[in-house]
Amino acid sequence: MAHLPPWLILDPSLKSWLAEDLGRGDLTTQALWPVESDTTWGQAELRLKQPGLIAGLPLFQRVFHLLCLEVDVQPLVQDGHTCPSGTVVAQLKGPMSALLMGERVALNLIMPLSGIATLTRTYAQQIADLPTQLVDTRKTTPGLRMLEKYATHVGGAINHRLGLDDAVMIKDNHIIAAGGIGEAVRCIRQHVPFPLAIEVETETLEQVQQALAHQVDIIMLDNMSVEQMQAAVQLIRSYSPSHRTIIEASGNINLQTIRTVAETGVDYISTSATITQAQWLDFSLKFMG
Amino acid sequence: MAHLPPWLILDPSLKSWLAEDLGRGDLTTQALWPVESDTTWGQAELRLKQPGLIAGLPLFQRVFHLLCLEVDVQPLVQDGHTCPSGTVVAQLKGPMSALLMGERVALNLIMPLSGIATLTRTYAQQIADLPTQLVDTRKTTPGLRMLEKYATHVGGAINHRLGLDDAVMIKDNHIIAAGGIGEAVRCIRQHVPFPLAIEVETETLEQVQQALAHQVDIIMLDNMSVEQMQAAVQLIRSYSPSHRTIIEASGNINLQTIRTVAETGVDYISTSATITQAQWLDFSLKFMG
Amino acid sequence: MAHLPPWLILDPSLKSWLAEDLGRGDLTTQALWPVESDTTWGQAELRLKQPGLIAGLPLFQRVFHLLCLEVDVQPLVQDGHTCPSGTVVAQLKGPMSALLMGERVALNLIMPLSGIATLTRTYAQQIADLPTQLVDTRKTTPGLRMLEKYATHVGGAINHRLGLDDAVMIKDNHIIAAGGIGEAVRCIRQHVPFPLAIEVETETLEQVQQALAHQVDIIMLDNMSVEQMQAAVQLIRSYSPSHRTIIEASGNINLQTIRTVAETGVDYISTSATITQAQWLDFSLKFMG
Amino acid sequence: MAHLPPWLILDPSLKSWLAEDLGRGDLTTQALWPVESDTTWGQAELRLKQPGLIAGLPLFQRVFHLLCLEVDVQPLVQDGHTCPSGTVVAQLKGPMSALLMGERVALNLIMPLSGIATLTRTYAQQIADLPTQLVDTRKTTPGLRMLEKYATHVGGAINHRLGLDDAVMIKDNHIIAAGGIGEAVRCIRQHVPFPLAIEVETETLEQVQQALAHQVDIIMLDNMSVEQMQAAVQLIRSYSPSHRTIIEASGNINLQTIRTVAETGVDYISTSATITQAQWLDFSLKFMG
Amino acid sequence: MAHLPPWLILDPSLKSWLAEDLGRGDLTTQALWPVESDTTWGQAELRLKQPGLIAGLPLFQRVFHLLCLEVDVQPLVQDGHTCPSGTVVAQLKGPMSALLMGERVALNLIMPLSGIATLTRTYAQQIADLPTQLVDTRKTTPGLRMLEKYATHVGGAINHRLGLDDAVMIKDNHIIAAGGIGEAVRCIRQHVPFPLAIEVETETLEQVQQALAHQVDIIMLDNMSVEQMQAAVQLIRSYSPSHRTIIEASGNINLQTIRTVAETGVDYISTSATITQAQWLDFSLKFMG
Amino acid sequence: MAHLPPWLILDPSLKSWLAEDLGRGDLTTQALWPVESDTTWGQAELRLKQPGLIAGLPLFQRVFHLLCLEVDVQPLVQDGHTCPSGTVVAQLKGPMSALLMGERVALNLIMPLSGIATLTRTYAQQIADLPTQLVDTRKTTPGLRMLEKYATHVGGAINHRLGLDDAVMIKDNHIIAAGGIGEAVRCIRQHVPFPLAIEVETETLEQVQQALAHQVDIIMLDNMSVEQMQAAVQLIRSYSPSHRTIIEASGNINLQTIRTVAETGVDYISTSATITQAQWLDFSLKFMG
Repeated sequence: MAHLPPWLILDPSLKSWLAEDLGRGDLTTQALWPVESDTTWGQAELRLKQPGLIAGLPLFQRVFHLLCLEVDVQPLVQDGHTCPSGTVVAQLKGPMSALLMGERVALNLIMPLSGIATLTRTYAQQIADLPTQLVDTRKTTPGLRMLEKYATHVGGAINHRLGLDDAVMIKDNHIIAAGGIGEAVRCIRQHVPFPLAIEVETETLEQVQQALAHQVDIIMLDNMSVEQMQAAVQLIRSYSPSHRTIIEASGNINLQTIRTVAETGVDYISTSATITQAQWLDFSLKFMG
Repeated sequence: MAHLPPWLILDPSLKSWLAEDLGRGDLTTQALWPVESDTTWGQAELRLKQPGLIAGLPLFQRVFHLLCLEVDVQPLVQDGHTCPSGTVVAQLKGPMSALLMGERVALNLIMPLSGIATLTRTYAQQIADLPTQLVDTRKTTPGLRMLEKYATHVGGAINHRLGLDDAVMIKDNHIIAAGGIGEAVRCIRQHVPFPLAIEVETETLEQVQQALAHQVDIIMLDNMSVEQMQAAVQLIRSYSPSHRTIIEASGNINLQTIRTVAETGVDYISTSATITQAQWLDFSLKFMG
Repeated sequence: MAHLPPWLILDPSLKSWLAEDLGRGDLTTQALWPVESDTTWGQAELRLKQPGLIAGLPLFQRVFHLLCLEVDVQPLVQDGHTCPSGTVVAQLKGPMSALLMGERVALNLIMPLSGIATLTRTYAQQIADLPTQLVDTRKTTPGLRMLEKYATHVGGAINHRLGLDDAVMIKDNHIIAAGGIGEAVRCIRQHVPFPLAIEVETETLEQVQQALAHQVDIIMLDNMSVEQMQAAVQLIRSYSPSHRTIIEASGNINLQTIRTVAETGVDYISTSATITQAQWLDFSLKFMG
Repeated sequence: MAHLPPWLILDPSLKSWLAEDLGRGDLTTQALWPVESDTTWGQAELRLKQPGLIAGLPLFQRVFHLLCLEVDVQPLVQDGHTCPSGTVVAQLKGPMSALLMGERVALNLIMPLSGIATLTRTYAQQIADLPTQLVDTRKTTPGLRMLEKYATHVGGAINHRLGLDDAVMIKDNHIIAAGGIGEAVRCIRQHVPFPLAIEVETETLEQVQQALAHQVDIIMLDNMSVEQMQAAVQLIRSYSPSHRTIIEASGNINLQTIRTVAETGVDYISTSATITQAQWLDFSLKFMG
Repeated sequence: MAHLPPWLILDPSLKSWLAEDLGRGDLTTQALWPVESDTTWGQAELRLKQPGLIAGLPLFQRVFHLLCLEVDVQPLVQDGHTCPSGTVVAQLKGPMSALLMGERVALNLIMPLSGIATLTRTYAQQIADLPTQLVDTRKTTPGLRMLEKYATHVGGAINHRLGLDDAVMIKDNHIIAAGGIGEAVRCIRQHVPFPLAIEVETETLEQVQQALAHQVDIIMLDNMSVEQMQAAVQLIRSYSPSHRTIIEASGNINLQTIRTVAETGVDYISTSATITQAQWLDFSLKFMG
Repeated sequence: MAHLPPWLILDPSLKSWLAEDLGRGDLTTQALWPVESDTTWGQAELRLKQPGLIAGLPLFQRVFHLLCLEVDVQPLVQDGHTCPSGTVVAQLKGPMSALLMGERVALNLIMPLSGIATLTRTYAQQIADLPTQLVDTRKTTPGLRMLEKYATHVGGAINHRLGLDDAVMIKDNHIIAAGGIGEAVRCIRQHVPFPLAIEVETETLEQVQQALAHQVDIIMLDNMSVEQMQAAVQLIRSYSPSHRTIIEASGNINLQTIRTVAETGVDYISTSATITQAQWLDFSLKFMG
């Protein structure tokens, strides 16, 4: 599975999320256990309340670490494991104040990420025996791009580009405004950093042909019917038998259609559904008396 | 419906979300229309692709405004309107570079927020003819607390506390560690800013009784059966016939159970389902040739 | 006494205050003891130079901690203690460079905060034997809201709302513009998060009557004469004999008037004087040869 | 009088102070006049409620400007003017929401700054006919260094160094640890940026003699009696008749002692009293019906 | 030429650079023309003092814009133009305070960037008639990565990867630690976002062979002799006659060697020399009386 | 040599420079050694590849420290040492992931800074036997002011003012706009913090005379011929025989002219050449198998 960026990159977000919940401080918890003199040690268990695939344990840990170095979070499983309902996923020990102040933010991370990973796994399993691979998109919750892409990877997808700056994707609007696929590709080739690939979105076989003519690296078949896709794949493969032009299918992918699309022979199927249709996986943090 | 914080508060987040997507720049768009000399003007329409309740139009507008002052976004409906599939929700005009660079982030805001508003409306409608009101929780996506709470409000819910610092909520763990409801309430009363209410989470009738004895402002009935809730409501109302102790029901609320719970006579029903179970509402941004 | 927010919340301010004083570095101290190779250990004492109430020791400690982990600050008393002139309040040990670079900022925190706490105590003592309680206001030094509110709490006051977002306070201007108390209350009730109380500022008995009619939680008597206040208290108590409508007096509170105001039977007296009239309490940091 | 840093430098602080008060938004004002659709225009007057010297009007203006570009603040006097009680200092026009949301922060700036300026003027007037000049110190409220130094300048003082990085001041602890004034001066001369002066704090005539021997630029007479100061001034002037060694007196300066100290012939008298003993000058913002 | 990121991305850096120079304010300029009341309008010319290639004019403009919206900077040439010594490159009009406060930072950007562009052009011209293209590296001044890469592009180079996150480059150390090229490639292929290319650094023909065997997208010939490079190019081309495996030469590239290296038939030559060996191009800003 | 500011001041820049290179993470390194579970320990040597003067080792160390506390960097020499080509300057041990992710940024600091120090030393040596001292200017790379000034100090220069706020320098444009040297000095004297010196830039003997008449602290001879400088020095020394008016020469200083200028008897020679003409000193980081 893909890996999280270093903490140097993630910590500012994690801190801002704790600050969002704490505001000017935790009125309830701090009244009972003032941070600067909290000697009451607590223990708690992170428990999964429905079956699912775990994603986000290092983030769950880090939230408490940033709040208080003394909190000890022991994971009992690891990201990427599928667990039955009731699994104790981690054990926590530390000052009551830190355990109670970090609880909500830590859960608000592991729950949606595990939900995404779990749904992604369901999609990936539909095509697990085929060479086609599942990829994600840039439809991600603002501020959580890397975490949600991490979750889809834990669930078995390959990440598509991480942002507007690490790959070239020429979309319909680019094509129209530039006056055609050829014009757009020529113009962009002069400016793009050299190791980066160029992908073009196509909606017709004619556009596929143009994309081939300009030797783009990746051709996306967008919102095509299965028949169109079959024709497009045949066209591309015959043009480039050495299989180096990558084919990506996109649009209207769901659990019913994904296998049929994969069977057309495309290299990749991209969908935002694993993120936009995911629901939070349920966990609870239970303190021990 | 509740209102968004002033832009002074929201702009840093909106900018960071644009930066998350742009990274070091938009390789595709900037190659075709360099920001500093973009004179190609484009037009586009924001169109709803499934029926739903709109939430987030001011944010959609602001994203483009922060990227480029010249983009003009004209909303054709307003937040809080329920629209059929196909509704043109807004019209955009502006430099191609800004329209294309802001598109994804703007959509990544209005889509999940409208999804939350739409689901909240469904919950709220189950109890619309009863005096009980729907409230949300602190189970919100990190970084999006105020926006998701805005969306639930657009959908017809009342916001519960916005963070750990604007209300006191004494939960089971606080009670255990403090040695009882009375001890916790007494300790906290000394520290809480004066206009703030004190809420206590109760799981048994005995705890309800203790909470009444200590004159807390709000009693939450957590994960109780309908019968328990009925008994609790009766107990509280008889104790305080002037109806000033507020009763909140929480736990296991879903579209099947919400009405029955409301009929017990509680003042508020809180649920995180309107956020954690919501899916993105589908919109598209279509450029006009 | 109330508690400081967690360091996660306070550290960015503390760091910015050190940076404000250090600018591009401490020319004098770093020339003598370069930070990266400072092996000269120093000792110092924090001594109170006039009698007063201590507030801010944890902040004094934290300033040095953020500058250099090796500085050891041992408090000999605690926040909330009243000390005679000459009391050694804390002992410090650590690298000379850190002790000298942190000195000014650390003192610039504990001195004004202890001044506020000391003056607050004087106010609180005037009404210590009465049920009325002293509260503070939002007249606080920009950037120091939570610290100054902490100091008034150390001095014996209850904090009033912490900001514009944790309580509703309908002031004269709100009333005029909304077209009356009733209109303002009705409009606001639809939007305010549910656990929050509604307070209305009143200047006449007629306004008090309207506020009662709309069942607001707190009525503030603003700039009324003692006679007006007596009448207002009588009116409110007779309207709501169960004593649940809270009464706050405000305006022209000083050491001469506070007791008379309290004797009218109001629940709270709010004043900004404990902050706006406070002077710094004098401390010195003396190094030992 | 000295001038404020450019807005580029001040704006981040001003914004953070507005955010401190607004938190997640202004519950009261936004409910009545939602920011995004506020068409209710209001007018208000900033009125001085006691006689004093005005300082901070540009900051008062800027706070509203940062919140909403449409607010128009017309100053009727200028910083540095002494005004009688009741003076209308500025007139405001703009959206109700912005006027009400910015009011508190804007007042929390102009009130303490005008208080400092007013007290500084009182000190400066004691020695106005003498060549000695009043200077301030680094005892300033954390985060407000430049604003409080601006206020003392408005009141008639000269600013002393702005931070640890724009002048060298060798204090008693530096001297002890370095092994004497000569050793400290020699070591520091090698490292200090060339246009900067070197000042030494002295407590005895012997130290004054050493400072002269090492040709420091400024000699501070710290906590000396008037007799000691007279002797020190004579010693320095005879040593350096061309009057180029600057003499600063410091310690125990108050309204009773300042003139006597000035008459010893020192060039500068530094005191923190104009900041640490200042109280807020009273202003009110009154809305017009 | 490549384009600068949108101002949303660059502005925070530009502001921080102005703040670095301004510190607590411009003592000289503000004393003469206080920012808040500066009505003295000035004019100035930006003049090139040696022949060279211009890069950075939009940044030069933006610096003044961020300081003061009223400054008007009219460029007379554009980035990418080669100009003789003495060329007036831009004309400025605006408040004296802003012109003088922004001058140094604006020049400190255009001077080194134009120096880089000028040197890059010299390198690029050596191979202008050959198909080989010049690329830059990640040896860039901290904080200026995108600006220096913009400058090399203005000078005629293609940008190599912009950071560690937009391309995969397997270096010698990765190979050793992973246990060989094959192992490294296999491991990385599982994690890399799909549109990204994989490049491998090779130092011997044997390593080239392994890289070919694992079908990497780009092979870098690092520090090879011209003879080794010739052999490597022949090997790669014969393996992949359709010319799709990209060949990059690196190491010991200078103005003497670059042409010989290009003649071996490599696709790209990368060098850091255009940045690390560049000197500032001289400009002056002259005010007109 | 001068010293670096405390880490509290430098860390935010260092972190932002790591973030600039890492972007969303190191695709290559993290795939091989995921940060959160990296147990592969590596060793490396920092080796100088050409003779030169070392500057920046504490920064080189700190970069790794900020990335991962477990990296151990042992310097074998110190900043300020001149080393032959091939010198092993430091030894590193730590997790492979941290060593590889921090390498580029750490080198991108030590290489240009050592280049500046080395060139500065060459300049300083030309006048090492004369009393004249070398100083730097404000022509520094944006964001690196303090580091580059540190490097010139390591190379043997004295730092000139660090920014616009720690010294007064009246330049030709200030003089013209103010209506003459006298007017400018008079106006500025009223506003400048008291310990700060006033420097005036002069281009003619007449201007020198005026500067003397107004008793400025430092006179800069800008772009004068050697003969003019000799006359100016004589004039100043005769005016102020006690040698307290400091003389600085500036303009057209290079390795050929510097000694002749120094022999005119000026106190300081300022040049930006040691920064603007410097090239990076070559180092490599070699991992040990």
